[in-house]
Amino acid sequence: MTSQDSTNRPAYGVHSEVGRLRKVLVCAPGLAHRRLTPTNSGDLLFDDVMWVENAQRDHADFVNKLRGRGVDVVELHDLLARTMALPAARDWLLDRKITPNEVGVGLVDGTRAFLESLEPAPLAEFLIGGLATADLPDDFRSGYLALARGSTGGREYLMPPLPNTLYTRDTTCWLYGGLTLNPLYWPARHDETLLMKAVYTFHPDFAGSTVWWGDPERDWRQATFEGGDIMPVGNGVVLMGMSERTSRQAITQVAAALFANGAAEHVIVAGLPRLRSAMHLDTVFTFADRDLVTLYPAIMEAVRTFSLRPADRAPGIELTDEGSRPFTEVVAKALGLSELRVVETGGDVYASERQQWDSGNNAVALEPGVVVTYDRNTQTNTLLREAGVEVITIVGAELGRGRGGGHCMTCPIARDPVEF
Amino acid sequence: MTSQDSTNRPAYGVHSEVGRLRKVLVCAPGLAHRRLTPTNSGDLLFDDVMWVENAQRDHADFVNKLRGRGVDVVELHDLLARTMALPAARDWLLDRKITPNEVGVGLVDGTRAFLESLEPAPLAEFLIGGLATADLPDDFRSGYLALARGSTGGREYLMPPLPNTLYTRDTTCWLYGGLTLNPLYWPARHDETLLMKAVYTFHPDFAGSTVWWGDPERDWRQATFEGGDIMPVGNGVVLMGMSERTSRQAITQVAAALFANGAAEHVIVAGLPRLRSAMHLDTVFTFADRDLVTLYPAIMEAVRTFSLRPADRAPGIELTDEGSRPFTEVVAKALGLSELRVVETGGDVYASERQQWDSGNNAVALEPGVVVTYDRNTQTNTLLREAGVEVITIVGAELGRGRGGGHCMTCPIARDPVEF
Amino acid sequence: MTSQDSTNRPAYGVHSEVGRLRKVLVCAPGLAHRRLTPTNSGDLLFDDVMWVENAQRDHADFVNKLRGRGVDVVELHDLLARTMALPAARDWLLDRKITPNEVGVGLVDGTRAFLESLEPAPLAEFLIGGLATADLPDDFRSGYLALARGSTGGREYLMPPLPNTLYTRDTTCWLYGGLTLNPLYWPARHDETLLMKAVYTFHPDFAGSTVWWGDPERDWRQATFEGGDIMPVGNGVVLMGMSERTSRQAITQVAAALFANGAAEHVIVAGLPRLRSAMHLDTVFTFADRDLVTLYPAIMEAVRTFSLRPADRAPGIELTDEGSRPFTEVVAKALGLSELRVVETGGDVYASERQQWDSGNNAVALEPGVVVTYDRNTQTNTLLREAGVEVITIVGAELGRGRGGGHCMTCPIARDPVEF
Amino acid sequence: MTSQDSTNRPAYGVHSEVGRLRKVLVCAPGLAHRRLTPTNSGDLLFDDVMWVENAQRDHADFVNKLRGRGVDVVELHDLLARTMALPAARDWLLDRKITPNEVGVGLVDGTRAFLESLEPAPLAEFLIGGLATADLPDDFRSGYLALARGSTGGREYLMPPLPNTLYTRDTTCWLYGGLTLNPLYWPARHDETLLMKAVYTFHPDFAGSTVWWGDPERDWRQATFEGGDIMPVGNGVVLMGMSERTSRQAITQVAAALFANGAAEHVIVAGLPRLRSAMHLDTVFTFADRDLVTLYPAIMEAVRTFSLRPADRAPGIELTDEGSRPFTEVVAKALGLSELRVVETGGDVYASERQQWDSGNNAVALEPGVVVTYDRNTQTNTLLREAGVEVITIVGAELGRGRGGGHCMTCPIARDPVEF
Repeated sequence: MTSQDSTNRPAYGVHSEVGRLRKVLVCAPGLAHRRLTPTNSGDLLFDDVMWVENAQRDHADFVNKLRGRGVDVVELHDLLARTMALPAARDWLLDRKITPNEVGVGLVDGTRAFLESLEPAPLAEFLIGGLATADLPDDFRSGYLALARGSTGGREYLMPPLPNTLYTRDTTCWLYGGLTLNPLYWPARHDETLLMKAVYTFHPDFAGSTVWWGDPERDWRQATFEGGDIMPVGNGVVLMGMSERTSRQAITQVAAALFANGAAEHVIVAGLPRLRSAMHLDTVFTFADRDLVTLYPAIMEAVRTFSLRPADRAPGIELTDEGSRPFTEVVAKALGLSELRVVETGGDVYASERQQWDSGNNAVALEPGVVVTYDRNTQTNTLLREAGVEVITIVGAELGRGRGGGHCMTCPIARDPVEF
Repeated sequence: MTSQDSTNRPAYGVHSEVGRLRKVLVCAPGLAHRRLTPTNSGDLLFDDVMWVENAQRDHADFVNKLRGRGVDVVELHDLLARTMALPAARDWLLDRKITPNEVGVGLVDGTRAFLESLEPAPLAEFLIGGLATADLPDDFRSGYLALARGSTGGREYLMPPLPNTLYTRDTTCWLYGGLTLNPLYWPARHDETLLMKAVYTFHPDFAGSTVWWGDPERDWRQATFEGGDIMPVGNGVVLMGMSERTSRQAITQVAAALFANGAAEHVIVAGLPRLRSAMHLDTVFTFADRDLVTLYPAIMEAVRTFSLRPADRAPGIELTDEGSRPFTEVVAKALGLSELRVVETGGDVYASERQQWDSGNNAVALEPGVVVTYDRNTQTNTLLREAGVEVITIVGAELGRGRGGGHCMTCPIARDPVEF
Repeated sequence: MTSQDSTNRPAYGVHSEVGRLRKVLVCAPGLAHRRLTPTNSGDLLFDDVMWVENAQRDHADFVNKLRGRGVDVVELHDLLARTMALPAARDWLLDRKITPNEVGVGLVDGTRAFLESLEPAPLAEFLIGGLATADLPDDFRSGYLALARGSTGGREYLMPPLPNTLYTRDTTCWLYGGLTLNPLYWPARHDETLLMKAVYTFHPDFAGSTVWWGDPERDWRQATFEGGDIMPVGNGVVLMGMSERTSRQAITQVAAALFANGAAEHVIVAGLPRLRSAMHLDTVFTFADRDLVTLYPAIMEAVRTFSLRPADRAPGIELTDEGSRPFTEVVAKALGLSELRVVETGGDVYASERQQWDSGNNAVALEPGVVVTYDRNTQTNTLLREAGVEVITIVGAELGRGRGGGHCMTCPIARDPVEF
Repeated sequence: MTSQDSTNRPAYGVHSEVGRLRKVLVCAPGLAHRRLTPTNSGDLLFDDVMWVENAQRDHADFVNKLRGRGVDVVELHDLLARTMALPAARDWLLDRKITPNEVGVGLVDGTRAFLESLEPAPLAEFLIGGLATADLPDDFRSGYLALARGSTGGREYLMPPLPNTLYTRDTTCWLYGGLTLNPLYWPARHDETLLMKAVYTFHPDFAGSTVWWGDPERDWRQATFEGGDIMPVGNGVVLMGMSERTSRQAITQVAAALFANGAAEHVIVAGLPRLRSAMHLDTVFTFADRDLVTLYPAIMEAVRTFSLRPADRAPGIELTDEGSRPFTEVVAKALGLSELRVVETGGDVYASERQQWDSGNNAVALEPGVVVTYDRNTQTNTLLREAGVEVITIVGAELGRGRGGGHCMTCPIARDPVEF
């Protein structure tokens, strides 16, 4: 995977937050969300259940709008199905998923035989959507299923559902010319990265990509890293939210890897308070144009800022505590701007808190000054438009129930740089 | 570790739940509990903070009562200190604990240098109690500490505290002539097992013990296993609670390992409901004499029982769903008893719920008919005495705040069999 | 209010759960819901914030569909505004709302003067939507506002918002020819009933109605009663859920009042488990036709059934514990039916739990065999249709976030009987 | 009650926070606490269950230490029993407690007959401890009990338990020469004040006391007031915490009443953040000597301070926002002191958070410089001693589980002034 890019496939890379978006990975709602109930949604990190059919409709509309703007949209079920059509890839992934530690002793052979009997598309659907004991046809069952049915929590599954795949932003990050395979914070999400490793190892469009850091087959302990906190803003700068989910242990390792490879020169760390509403940096701060951000002031004012820069001596990074300097000022200066224009969450005190919660600051740019956001945050959307931004809206009634918007639901694979 | 027992040290092994207790591992409260606050106690799996000095006093009284009955009591801080006095052991453990993934880039060298400067006893205390940034003397500090101080959750530690070491029962289990090194459910407890592996690998009294299953250096995924759910009751039988914390994926692997080694012939699985009060089997069911148990009926009546027995074919285990047969009846028959005598949690409906919560059913036997329990569960203790059991009480006001009693706080290393 | 119906206005009364609906009270979303934020929604009993504009659109569609079927729909903001246009009514209500206990010393005069300066419509909007300190124009402000701004919880309001008015079902119940003015469980909802008392005391269409029980100017202590638990099913029978919110203390008083007035002959009590999902009887059980109910079996199977019937001696009611008889069987017999046809929540185990949560069993009938439900519960809706029910759907994406559907959002005022 | 003090009984009154304590009301743990279970403790506002016998022992020790210092200690069970021995008092209270709204239709007569059959002491015990259906002897039972047994929450009681009586501080406040009968925040505590009204109306030692404000027979809506927030510090000054439980609506009314009666000249309001740990002002701030306070800085630094002073015009109070002036500075100046000496919660960052939680700042003074605190807060106690305070400790292991210490458990009835 880390070999040079000597093939003739197009070079991937994300060189800014707002340059023209060329190629992006998304994941449609599906079987995993049909497993969500009021009882298990907390375990699966969702605040509420969703109407899956409408979520699928709204997601399809999102994809259409991206494609209508010329973006090459790759969908994870499709991508995984095409990967699973490769016998080596299928064997590699099933060897890692269908083990006694995952499905349980006595159930490995039947489960594997069933999965191997499937076409790539339904196989991909179960890999993402989970495999319940009731999904296993009679021919593949054994007496050991009784024990699974008597279990609670996620243990009654043969493969647990992965509903957070909807938020492709978190699992892998393209940072300039290479990517990270992220160790996610919650154990319930770990397998998302394993699916992506299968893709990046075997799928011909992706194999050979440069991996800066991360490997889902290793245990990263405290070094957890989620893409919602990470923004390659251009000019050799990467923003990283230090949050409940993205730790200093990971941030410093990724910074060191980027510096060692000459991929970046400055990592700006936003130390976030520990709040459900500030889960990731991109829930309170995103870019809408080369010098324009939308942010939620109540939380961004509490951010403590640090800078990491390359150093000659081990460990290869140098830390600066930016003290009382506002985060936006540090970012502006790093980009060579006199200042960042800021669009705050709109409306009165009630509306702005509500809109931040409903992903009002979670915009994804398609090109400078063109973003996709949820329809429901009308006041923030109006402020963005008044600032000259073209705002394309999608329906957030269902998609937003896991607390993520357009930025969370997209993993850019190729995006142009911008000039500063 | 798995080599034969060719040394002249006494052979360890636990052959029952109530036979004479010869040797036991405990862990005194200490630095880890001085880190507990109302804010972090939930993350660290405690319901409340404790008065550490009094908890230490009450634990010392517990140890004295064990020793007064002739039990050889090993304390984990002491044991780990003696292990850390061995340079190879210290290097092995620090190589695994003091890594960029744990302490963070830029802090590895200083942290390691500080820990290596310590005598074995304070080193052991930090390994169990955690290392805060404030604990690092000036000589070992670097600018990178600022990032740790700006972090939240457990990430501000260089090594996180391990307050659940108090419950030595969970981390390792001697099951007849060998032991398991358990993958614990919560990530916050994983390092407990690593400490125990250091002991079982390097300490001369423990090196060479037979390990049936488990290794803290591997990722066991869904196969989690905690000693509070596990009881080697004798007659080749092992009881295993299938709970939030102990999964079917682990239970079946351990059963297969025991059967393959001829160490047991029958594993009885108690499928527990998912409730905080039924965290482990030993919070609702323990033995007080060869044919006498104390149990909390409101939960034990909801248990679903399964049997695992050796099978010739792979995977080496055969499952029987015991259907509507009560758990106690299945256990009695497996032990060759006509029935188990039962002492239910005492008092009226309020008192019995309260006493179960306060570890009233969490007795640990020193020999048949002699148990240690908390003083506060006076009604259950009286019922046990009326059933002919000698009840030795210890103070539970502080020790019980993590929801564990005498059974949870002891890991038997050598215990005699009983006759059935 | 309790005088006879000697005027020439149409006689109101609700004589069944499924007879032709003639007149109904609803309440549109509005200012109160614009106050909901992630921080305060729990205090205000909502699970999530809502997009108010869309909730208003969906509610308007609901009202249109009711009107299209010939139902006379009264909207609470309108009704209250017309009531507030009567000086005596306005004085009566403001005397009770604008007191030192509610708005605070030093703020009574300014607040009252401001409210009196308003036209009836905006006055009604603030009475339902709450009055924040920021809503008070400069002319009416005083230095005492600073103290309100320094307060937390609901105390920063001069009048707190009443977002649960959306669920008009709970506040008053027409039971055959008279009504109850209900003491609601949560203090945050008490003032809803006071608004309704103003309407029933002063509005010419409603003054003179017979009130069986209840008065918001008294403190009812443990006797709380919510319409979501109450169903006048016809044949002299009333179903009452005994829940967290509707207590035996209230149920028995209302039963005694109905029996004493000859208004009913049999009250069937459904003892519900204490679960968020079983908040009211109508969240798990409603009628769709004269002999057809939709119910959620997982909860209804746990119901314990009692019957109350008139008795000659004090206290005028006789209690029968129905023991192991299923609730549906007791109801069928009371209605003179051989059995109730049952449509269970649809879909697999995940979908049915999700649909119950999303108000899938919360149907409101417009006439026998014609109901309104949320669009999102497609599987339950299909089963209802297969049972011959005409199902009219409305959009539940926003309206459902307070955990209530068509039944919760309607308070029938006139409904025909059905034949059994 | 409000007549002049023309009798020859000693005049009561509390003229400071640290002057010699002459007479105090406490309430021993008892039946109410034997009802606490893990399931209901949240409803009853306790964080954990307690060992009642030991709580009683520790409370008796507290009382002995108070008496040993010459304090006249009145215990609530005793006081209520002596009050209930007066037929008029018993009738008055049972008329208000044994009503259909409280015990339920059909159960009034039997319950009342049973209670009237009791001696005053057991009657008082049930009034405080609650009356469960199981407590009613067969002779007094009726078929209606079945409905109570099928209820959940507090509704299965005929009279609910009042475990928070332990914290006598909250229910009534002597402020200089008169008292308030406080409307408490949680409905679960309302009846505490009714018991105290019976005492102050009928008991010869208390009848005739001047009541500044409050009456448990009225509904005070948002005007809730709890003694843990209230401190008559002397010099005509009263401190009042504005918290979740004590509202501006009540604070301003009490201030106006005090000013109108010439009982005080200055009320200083501490606007507290809404946190479980800052439930009342006395959980973060109490006096230990005439010019010495112990406080928890992390919360006290966030306090916003207001002053209320008498005004000629209605509403009789004048408000000053003290802006950025620290609370302690405003208090010192009001007392005529150059500054307050401050003892902060002791120990490192972990210990100080833990000690505040364990009521470390909740000292009650017996005379200037002599306080009672819990033993467990050793570091704060040491700092108090180093500041010259005599610290008398009591055991907090059980008593502290409802989150209250010596200050919360005492209601001073007579306390001398101090000189400033």
